[in-house]
Amino acid sequence: MAFAPQKSGGLVTFYDAPPNKYFDDAKVGGEIPYKPDAGVEDTLCFKHYNAKEVIYGRTMEEWLRFSVVYWHTFRGTGADPFGFPTLIRPWDDGTDSVENAKRRLRVAFEFLKRLGVKYYSFHDRDIAPEGSTLEETNKILDELTDLALQLQQETGIKLLWNTCNLFAHARYSNGAATNPDFHVLAYAGAQVKKGLDIAKKLGAENFVFWGGREGFHTLLNTNVKMELENLAAFFRQALTYKQKIGFTGQFLIEPKPKEPTKHQYDYDAMTVIAFLKTFGLENHFKLNIEPNHTTLAGHDFIHDIAMASSFSMLGSVDSNTGSPDLGWDTDQFPMDVKNCTLLMKVVLEQGGLAPGGLNFDCKVRRESNDIADLFIAHIGAMDTLARGLKSAAKIIEDGVLSKLITERYESFSSPEGRAFRDGLFSLEQCEQFVKSKGEPTPRSGRQEHFEAILNHYI
Amino acid sequence: MAFAPQKSGGLVTFYDAPPNKYFDDAKVGGEIPYKPDAGVEDTLCFKHYNAKEVIYGRTMEEWLRFSVVYWHTFRGTGADPFGFPTLIRPWDDGTDSVENAKRRLRVAFEFLKRLGVKYYSFHDRDIAPEGSTLEETNKILDELTDLALQLQQETGIKLLWNTCNLFAHARYSNGAATNPDFHVLAYAGAQVKKGLDIAKKLGAENFVFWGGREGFHTLLNTNVKMELENLAAFFRQALTYKQKIGFTGQFLIEPKPKEPTKHQYDYDAMTVIAFLKTFGLENHFKLNIEPNHTTLAGHDFIHDIAMASSFSMLGSVDSNTGSPDLGWDTDQFPMDVKNCTLLMKVVLEQGGLAPGGLNFDCKVRRESNDIADLFIAHIGAMDTLARGLKSAAKIIEDGVLSKLITERYESFSSPEGRAFRDGLFSLEQCEQFVKSKGEPTPRSGRQEHFEAILNHYI
Amino acid sequence: MAFAPQKSGGLVTFYDAPPNKYFDDAKVGGEIPYKPDAGVEDTLCFKHYNAKEVIYGRTMEEWLRFSVVYWHTFRGTGADPFGFPTLIRPWDDGTDSVENAKRRLRVAFEFLKRLGVKYYSFHDRDIAPEGSTLEETNKILDELTDLALQLQQETGIKLLWNTCNLFAHARYSNGAATNPDFHVLAYAGAQVKKGLDIAKKLGAENFVFWGGREGFHTLLNTNVKMELENLAAFFRQALTYKQKIGFTGQFLIEPKPKEPTKHQYDYDAMTVIAFLKTFGLENHFKLNIEPNHTTLAGHDFIHDIAMASSFSMLGSVDSNTGSPDLGWDTDQFPMDVKNCTLLMKVVLEQGGLAPGGLNFDCKVRRESNDIADLFIAHIGAMDTLARGLKSAAKIIEDGVLSKLITERYESFSSPEGRAFRDGLFSLEQCEQFVKSKGEPTPRSGRQEHFEAILNHYI
Amino acid sequence: MAFAPQKSGGLVTFYDAPPNKYFDDAKVGGEIPYKPDAGVEDTLCFKHYNAKEVIYGRTMEEWLRFSVVYWHTFRGTGADPFGFPTLIRPWDDGTDSVENAKRRLRVAFEFLKRLGVKYYSFHDRDIAPEGSTLEETNKILDELTDLALQLQQETGIKLLWNTCNLFAHARYSNGAATNPDFHVLAYAGAQVKKGLDIAKKLGAENFVFWGGREGFHTLLNTNVKMELENLAAFFRQALTYKQKIGFTGQFLIEPKPKEPTKHQYDYDAMTVIAFLKTFGLENHFKLNIEPNHTTLAGHDFIHDIAMASSFSMLGSVDSNTGSPDLGWDTDQFPMDVKNCTLLMKVVLEQGGLAPGGLNFDCKVRRESNDIADLFIAHIGAMDTLARGLKSAAKIIEDGVLSKLITERYESFSSPEGRAFRDGLFSLEQCEQFVKSKGEPTPRSGRQEHFEAILNHYI
Repeated sequence: MAFAPQKSGGLVTFYDAPPNKYFDDAKVGGEIPYKPDAGVEDTLCFKHYNAKEVIYGRTMEEWLRFSVVYWHTFRGTGADPFGFPTLIRPWDDGTDSVENAKRRLRVAFEFLKRLGVKYYSFHDRDIAPEGSTLEETNKILDELTDLALQLQQETGIKLLWNTCNLFAHARYSNGAATNPDFHVLAYAGAQVKKGLDIAKKLGAENFVFWGGREGFHTLLNTNVKMELENLAAFFRQALTYKQKIGFTGQFLIEPKPKEPTKHQYDYDAMTVIAFLKTFGLENHFKLNIEPNHTTLAGHDFIHDIAMASSFSMLGSVDSNTGSPDLGWDTDQFPMDVKNCTLLMKVVLEQGGLAPGGLNFDCKVRRESNDIADLFIAHIGAMDTLARGLKSAAKIIEDGVLSKLITERYESFSSPEGRAFRDGLFSLEQCEQFVKSKGEPTPRSGRQEHFEAILNHYI
Repeated sequence: MAFAPQKSGGLVTFYDAPPNKYFDDAKVGGEIPYKPDAGVEDTLCFKHYNAKEVIYGRTMEEWLRFSVVYWHTFRGTGADPFGFPTLIRPWDDGTDSVENAKRRLRVAFEFLKRLGVKYYSFHDRDIAPEGSTLEETNKILDELTDLALQLQQETGIKLLWNTCNLFAHARYSNGAATNPDFHVLAYAGAQVKKGLDIAKKLGAENFVFWGGREGFHTLLNTNVKMELENLAAFFRQALTYKQKIGFTGQFLIEPKPKEPTKHQYDYDAMTVIAFLKTFGLENHFKLNIEPNHTTLAGHDFIHDIAMASSFSMLGSVDSNTGSPDLGWDTDQFPMDVKNCTLLMKVVLEQGGLAPGGLNFDCKVRRESNDIADLFIAHIGAMDTLARGLKSAAKIIEDGVLSKLITERYESFSSPEGRAFRDGLFSLEQCEQFVKSKGEPTPRSGRQEHFEAILNHYI
Repeated sequence: MAFAPQKSGGLVTFYDAPPNKYFDDAKVGGEIPYKPDAGVEDTLCFKHYNAKEVIYGRTMEEWLRFSVVYWHTFRGTGADPFGFPTLIRPWDDGTDSVENAKRRLRVAFEFLKRLGVKYYSFHDRDIAPEGSTLEETNKILDELTDLALQLQQETGIKLLWNTCNLFAHARYSNGAATNPDFHVLAYAGAQVKKGLDIAKKLGAENFVFWGGREGFHTLLNTNVKMELENLAAFFRQALTYKQKIGFTGQFLIEPKPKEPTKHQYDYDAMTVIAFLKTFGLENHFKLNIEPNHTTLAGHDFIHDIAMASSFSMLGSVDSNTGSPDLGWDTDQFPMDVKNCTLLMKVVLEQGGLAPGGLNFDCKVRRESNDIADLFIAHIGAMDTLARGLKSAAKIIEDGVLSKLITERYESFSSPEGRAFRDGLFSLEQCEQFVKSKGEPTPRSGRQEHFEAILNHYI
Repeated sequence: MAFAPQKSGGLVTFYDAPPNKYFDDAKVGGEIPYKPDAGVEDTLCFKHYNAKEVIYGRTMEEWLRFSVVYWHTFRGTGADPFGFPTLIRPWDDGTDSVENAKRRLRVAFEFLKRLGVKYYSFHDRDIAPEGSTLEETNKILDELTDLALQLQQETGIKLLWNTCNLFAHARYSNGAATNPDFHVLAYAGAQVKKGLDIAKKLGAENFVFWGGREGFHTLLNTNVKMELENLAAFFRQALTYKQKIGFTGQFLIEPKPKEPTKHQYDYDAMTVIAFLKTFGLENHFKLNIEPNHTTLAGHDFIHDIAMASSFSMLGSVDSNTGSPDLGWDTDQFPMDVKNCTLLMKVVLEQGGLAPGGLNFDCKVRRESNDIADLFIAHIGAMDTLARGLKSAAKIIEDGVLSKLITERYESFSSPEGRAFRDGLFSLEQCEQFVKSKGEPTPRSGRQEHFEAILNHYI
């Protein structure tokens, strides 16, 4: 996930709309309809996503479990390291007032309703401004989450997950749970306590940890071993508190290799699994995989999703994408049908993502400064994932690819193959086997055949 | 590690030298001397490496435990994916004959002696040609390893490690222990059995697994879960056989992210640790870290060495380097004093590498076609690591950096900090701590100060 | 382009087929048919490519101008830096004999005919073995190109381009036209002279230069300025000779950033244009763009194609792809419909590629060791490019995207905008304009809208 | 160059110091002394840089021409895409007032004086806040540059270059000189007019263009050809105005491949040269090379510096560095002695950089929040470049490397070699030469020998 902490400045024209009506119907067209035959330029309707349509035994809505993120969509300003805010929203007066925060929250629920999305997710600091003390901050947070709870009840929209922002404030510049200063670690602990209280209050289905400052810029000043031990101890206290208050959501860790920190401890799926297993935490956490982070770690789009699923650790997906030629997190909306097909194939094969979902950790480009762009971007991504779902379901229903894979590994159903997999075939037996059978015949991996078959479905 | 399997062609002029004299003293100067005051152009002497000089309590030789690799140094031809062999050696007649293999082995020991290096390492297929059946291959291997044993005894040179080449032969194109065909897996098992027999016979101090074909080119045709389970089962059989024959060397896995395979299961240090812990193998393996593989995985030079050491898993180092702007393994000789200082600092801090060592998995550039280049390259790298050793020892003896780090983490020696590290400080206590102490003061990470101090030593 | 110089060894089972029948109809099905409704697993037919079908005013064949490469498809062995050959062809006896070379050439023409492709391309050293002297080499080359000419006449298949392999032989290890040794440069000159003679003889429509060894591994030993001047002088002599013999094909330079050399002078499209303009050669050369090289240079798939076309320098395309997460040239068959649509959109917008074409500088994976894989791979790529052609034609015929772009730049049709473009609007006038008009209103770049529209066509 | 546009917030404790005394002598020690024998922890003195010491015929100060940047050093807040400001300066009250801007400028000159650096550089928007109209903005700029002129005269500190920030304001989100909206382009023109007026007023020795938003995020919405033509037309108007007002500084373009824009037109040195030559602008511009941009473009640290110098286009250097494993501009202080030696070798070989210089486009890490860190970072980099200067001078004075290079190319001094370089040696003559001389002998490139020699000097 990412977070654009820059203030939007005092440039906004405050839009004094009636409380439940922050978007212009003439421009974004009310609730987004499903119009499979709409024309080329009509990008404000779904052409593929049809929430109640049943695909492979469940509705599209149930498989896809879309979630909109609060930070990019309602707090993103378009600021980047080289530029000031560009995304000026009429409902946002640019202040840190509670009133502004509440209005923004109402807008968010209206946006979700129009889009037909049933889940959202947020950091504590997205939804409510920080006060001058922890007590004051928590009080404001109570006020905002009271409103969130009311809006959830009114609309039926649910919280996929919340998380604590342990990276934006200056106090966390050297890390939160891995800070060399215990005082900072304690602050993070207090913040997570409150985050878990909120998760319980709002019925969050998951709770996410993303360690953007947990890592190092240089090994010269760092005690890696102590920092990792502290991180594990921190997670254990969070588990204890979770159990104490009876919060039943799934704990998720989100890997990212680098940015903002030069090296982050949660580098990729396998690194996090190594960490969890080293410290005996593997039964209490799953992974929230973001493909843009995966590609930044040197893998391809699907890698961490597939590996996490193979290790039964895939909990949720931050369904975004990046530009493979760029070395930072661009958090783009996923618009590639092939990648979305591969993603949905893993999701279908593991029987779905619940209680996780497909969370749009994506932001409109900073040049996309029209409110309509917010809708177009989400719709485009939802349609692309719907196409991916349909293609993946067809692949699985046809069974051609799975049959080819089964055939490829059929020798492990032989007596010797089975014995080996059961740990009952020694190196000496291997030698005897080769002496009697001779040289194996190399078999084609048939990659081009598999790729051509995949293209058949896309 | 890498392996250049191309034949050197029939172009060589066979050099019919007396058995113990394959190098021209006029050119490479007999045993390489230590001449600290030699001139700029004299690159055929050590200016820094002085084997018996005591540094931080041990001789340089003991700390550095240099090893020369058989594959690059005695089997490298300079062939690359775009070019034919360039490195024509007078002792090599270009055939796959046993006689040629034996002559090459004698040359290798002469080279090691002249260089003053006490260890070497090899793949089974480097040292002996493959026959037409496994039995024939093993017989040739016996003959060559008999000679190796004799030469070891004559010279006192020892085997740092051997390994099995499970990647070059066409049979392994879809993997060895992760091949979809059990027949191929069995072949790999038979080969490892023989590899372990040789390791025992030659007194290898370690045995290495590098899975260059263990991974996938496309997930479309791959059952990742089954392949990883097979890999673990394979390692278990190797452990069983190791114990059975009483081989006491250390098992090492060498991570590499990619190349030749698009994605290799042993991606980096943390990925291998995750694998070992998932399958309960972590007490029986350590890691052989190659910095060039580390940088290919998106980390910096020192990352995997430092992380493996932090997890008590650093067993040995393939001391090479790459060009950070290139995306493939260039296996260059380490010539950067700063990187070698950082490397030796980790080695000193963990008390040395034994039974591992600094193995030169490096090759002269294919344009460096003079035999003298072989010497210059090794000497240059040995001198650079010797400079690194001296600098690292000075850093540790001075204690300035370690003092600064201790100060940085001193808050974890407070009662609350200690309680937290002992698992006795809850999130509620964190909250109380913050309520009583208020906002922490961000402290400088002082990266530039640490960097300037490091430069002081280099 | 790439070149796998490794010998295929003596392992082949020589297939003594009748001269015109090297493929098994039972397996690869005679001439590849167009069967738009074929089933999922039938990957040995075209489902989209229909040579004579007219799209946007020309036949598909005319737009696509497919070409098969000799090096990968008929000389590729599957050897890689870590592995021996895997692709054993029954028509190849593994020798360097002229007879073997001729049989291979006949197979190539049969393959092209079955595939329905009208062009091929080769390096001099692909088609004919090298002799022990230049004279002998040229004589063999004459013999083979006599046969090529005869086969061209018999089949109607034409030569898209030929090129000289100035990178594989050991003599070129330090470069050809940029070698520090004039003797080597002269050798390259002699080889290019012969290459141009062959180009004329065979009616090549283009002649390509790829400088795989023109660059440096380290600046420490390199005089960049002299090397670039020599490269330019070399090209001037080639132009002189071309004009002298009346060869009228287009000269093409193929950029590549690195591999095999650490840094190649022809880094990317813009670098080559800089070089050509610096030395006054820009009117005599166009570019042969390979997307896999483009991505290795840090750009996206389409970048160099689009930039070269914008500068009116796009001559031909080596239509392949790579894996963005890999740092070397994988020369994969292009199987991504979106990328192929973007590629064909540029081709259509510049009115076609002739005399260039879409040359498959692609190789089957080394695990794809079945002869059928050769067909499946080419067919899959041809179908993908045919889909790209159809989508691109539809985009252009609809005119929606071009209309949106025209609107985006409409202000340059205002009097001031036109004056500026004509060089008649000074900075002072800019200042006056702003003083009278005030602050401009930022307009949305609408990237997500454009992306959603593109998805409509794919 | 980079620019951190985020406001520092209202958190600062305003430091009401006497006008000429913003730094605490007790902490940063007055003017930074030269103390070659200072201890390890003393990083607030020069151990290598001795301004008046003569090296290779000039003082260190004359060769190095250090310059401090205004943006990072005096406007950097430590904010990043994931975090709020961390660098709170006591002299900065966090407002956009003119008074605050003036105080900051006085601090800057005091900093430069203490550091002993003679040059600075700035963007127009660094030094003065933007008003609500262009007129108002320019008026504020006049007021601030009046003060800058006065401070320059008082201190003898000079302006190495100024530049216009054409990337941070929302109006430039789709580009400045390449914006699709002429109105925005005109605004940029007006801004550059003022920038040139200031350059003349302050005696800037150069004027820089960095096109951070000149490029594209997607080709789908972009007319590349028109945008490049507009960029060229814009530069022509800048040249016209420069000549009109009699500004005699050097125009410089700074290449950067990407960030913030996905693809920037000024990708790297060669791309800019291609652009300049295409539009006939090459005699009026040189390049300002930033190594961190060079590495982001896929080259090594020294590449663009060396290439630009080879093409006689190296005008100035933004002497910073990055982390090769990170894909964004980290603008770190150059602390690597080897890289700085290679950099200074190019500078010495081309006879110096004047009127350009070594401009520290570097920022302290956001964790380095102590004012002392600002000094330590600059001092560390100045010392490292001083070491590089001394090593490079020694290399050149010794002449060993240049002698080896001369020998390497000696064949081009033969009659045939000279004739070829003069354009008087045809391909036919090449063929005759080879027929008479036979096969050339491959000569070693001796890379390891060159590397070992380089290490001798470091």
